Amino acid sequence: MVSLPLAPGSTIGILGGGQLGRMLAEAASRLGFDVAVLEREADSPAGRIAAHTIVAPYDDAEALKALAGLAGVVTYEFENVPAASVAQLAAMGVEVAPGARVLAVAQDRVEEKTFLNAHGVATVAFAAAATAAEATEAVARIGAPCLMKTRREGYDGKGQRWVEHVDKAAEVFAALGGRPVIVEAPADFVRELSVIAARGRDGATAVYPLAENHHEDGILRRSLAPAAASTALADQAERIAAQILSGLDYVGVIGVELFELKDGRLLVNEIAPRVHNTGHWTQDGCEVDQFEQHIRAVAGWPLGPTRAIAGVEMLNLLGAEVDAWPRYAAEPETRLHLYGKRGAKPGRKMGHINRVKPLS
Amino acid sequence: MVSLPLAPGSTIGILGGGQLGRMLAEAASRLGFDVAVLEREADSPAGRIAAHTIVAPYDDAEALKALAGLAGVVTYEFENVPAASVAQLAAMGVEVAPGARVLAVAQDRVEEKTFLNAHGVATVAFAAAATAAEATEAVARIGAPCLMKTRREGYDGKGQRWVEHVDKAAEVFAALGGRPVIVEAPADFVRELSVIAARGRDGATAVYPLAENHHEDGILRRSLAPAAASTALADQAERIAAQILSGLDYVGVIGVELFELKDGRLLVNEIAPRVHNTGHWTQDGCEVDQFEQHIRAVAGWPLGPTRAIAGVEMLNLLGAEVDAWPRYAAEPETRLHLYGKRGAKPGRKMGHINRVKPLS
Repeated sequence: MVSLPLAPGSTIGILGGGQLGRMLAEAASRLGFDVAVLEREADSPAGRIAAHTIVAPYDDAEALKALAGLAGVVTYEFENVPAASVAQLAAMGVEVAPGARVLAVAQDRVEEKTFLNAHGVATVAFAAAATAAEATEAVARIGAPCLMKTRREGYDGKGQRWVEHVDKAAEVFAALGGRPVIVEAPADFVRELSVIAARGRDGATAVYPLAENHHEDGILRRSLAPAAASTALADQAERIAAQILSGLDYVGVIGVELFELKDGRLLVNEIAPRVHNTGHWTQDGCEVDQFEQHIRAVAGWPLGPTRAIAGVEMLNLLGAEVDAWPRYAAEPETRLHLYGKRGAKPGRKMGHINRVKPLS
Repeated sequence: MVSLPLAPGSTIGILGGGQLGRMLAEAASRLGFDVAVLEREADSPAGRIAAHTIVAPYDDAEALKALAGLAGVVTYEFENVPAASVAQLAAMGVEVAPGARVLAVAQDRVEEKTFLNAHGVATVAFAAAATAAEATEAVARIGAPCLMKTRREGYDGKGQRWVEHVDKAAEVFAALGGRPVIVEAPADFVRELSVIAARGRDGATAVYPLAENHHEDGILRRSLAPAAASTALADQAERIAAQILSGLDYVGVIGVELFELKDGRLLVNEIAPRVHNTGHWTQDGCEVDQFEQHIRAVAGWPLGPTRAIAGVEMLNLLGAEVDAWPRYAAEPETRLHLYGKRGAKPGRKMGHINRVKPLS
């Protein structure tokens, strides 16, 4: 077993080589760690700044063994890590954080909402269905219009559809591949918010100020942080984050997407057991950003401060939008974070900017 | 020839794989660049986070060719880059920044002070000597006690000695290896300050606030920034930086070490044509730190803002002092920057911390 806290000079393993892995690797570098990336594709954004890169599927036993030989602690940049991979790493004595329990919860929308409700955290009403008949019954129970989503996988609006009428339930179920689904009541929200929080190996928690998020076509476009929020709302968000973190015996940074209702109540939309796009503002709005915070947590270090030191508008650069980098580079208030991805396919996250202003 | 400004996704070459190279590589990563490091030693701090590492002497023709094949722009982390290497890279159509002219000036203490005085920048009185007889004559002219330093090389207090009496000049000259030396009058300074400044390819300049520096045994221990300074003093430093940058037709970040005299005048002690230890405070005290600023400049991007957003006490961690990392990690006001070096030899720069406080 690795001795914690992990000393500088040690190697941290990261499953996944995308932009989140890259920004985790940047933070790890600042703290004196080496990084080993396991990623399916060669020449990945994180792999290019890692001391070690293993190019293989995430469930490749030899690759996992190689990773275990390099890294004292392993983390991941996405929630669809195969459970068997985490089990194999654990069996080899490697700490994986966040752990297997949270992956089981986060990989299945029904498990996720069931967990949340069981821990006193409100969500929209939902029902599970595994057949067309069950799907019709679920829509009848929840009431159309409602959302039908595959229980597993799906991100950035993929794997989900609206059901306008109960008669359409079976058709939508088939269109989603006939796989097990969740049927969710729509949330009548006034704003989408998110809270980024962290829990250390010692059980200490730290919560960043709320971000207000704006999506287009299911993809995050813009976050404003710290979001304008009453103390009561901030306290509510902090309580929700604390419930989730302790309920999962969590280690690392978590992203919690929230719906703010007219009456001021917050519902949890979904949780992401990793650093989160809506937390990118912390890079320029906080002294310790979500990436360093995650590295600190998984390495067994004390958590850092989470208060805001600046107001930030975070804007995702999708596809060819990244070509506007010369304009952004010339804006004194704009900090660029580019991912070094080779192809700017439409909708692909190529980078983001943080426009910084003094706290009002 | 490379087309400037250099687009994200391009590769920036760095000569030198130490901590300055590593922090330059971290900044380059944030802006979406790849890095290629040429460094004599394998497993270097910068090499471990670079997409490409070439392990070879800095004057290895094949290695320089390989670097030129990868990188559109090449920069360096130390001023003793062989002039022939820069010439070879230039001959292969690679932009080297800062360029050959500044290296010639910065590699020779006599050239450096001659350049400064010729551009209206004051230094201590000095005299050059190449023989024991000339050394004695130079000490007689400058007046003992005075400093004798080798003209070339030497850093962190190495390659220099005090001459207490003119009778000792020949002896000190021999002790320094009988190489060409500079004899310098001591500066009767009240404080050691430094100014970090940058010049872009478009000739624009940006100057960071002054840092106040404290050395021990010739090695920087501590910087306080922004230093308490009158507007007149800050203006004087800014004017000095501007004279040097334009005089050298400079591209990149430069560190200028200053002596503040009792009468408020500033003398330049030395210049370092690179990111500088006394500029590490900018990582947590400014929106764009000296490392990103240098990458911006050499890549032909616009310079970023240089005003301070926080007060910083920068403390170097030398040798085994880095073992105190758990204590620093637990201080909420302390940001750690560790270099991932393998051996903590006495006096070796292993990392630094920035203790941050609100601007007063």
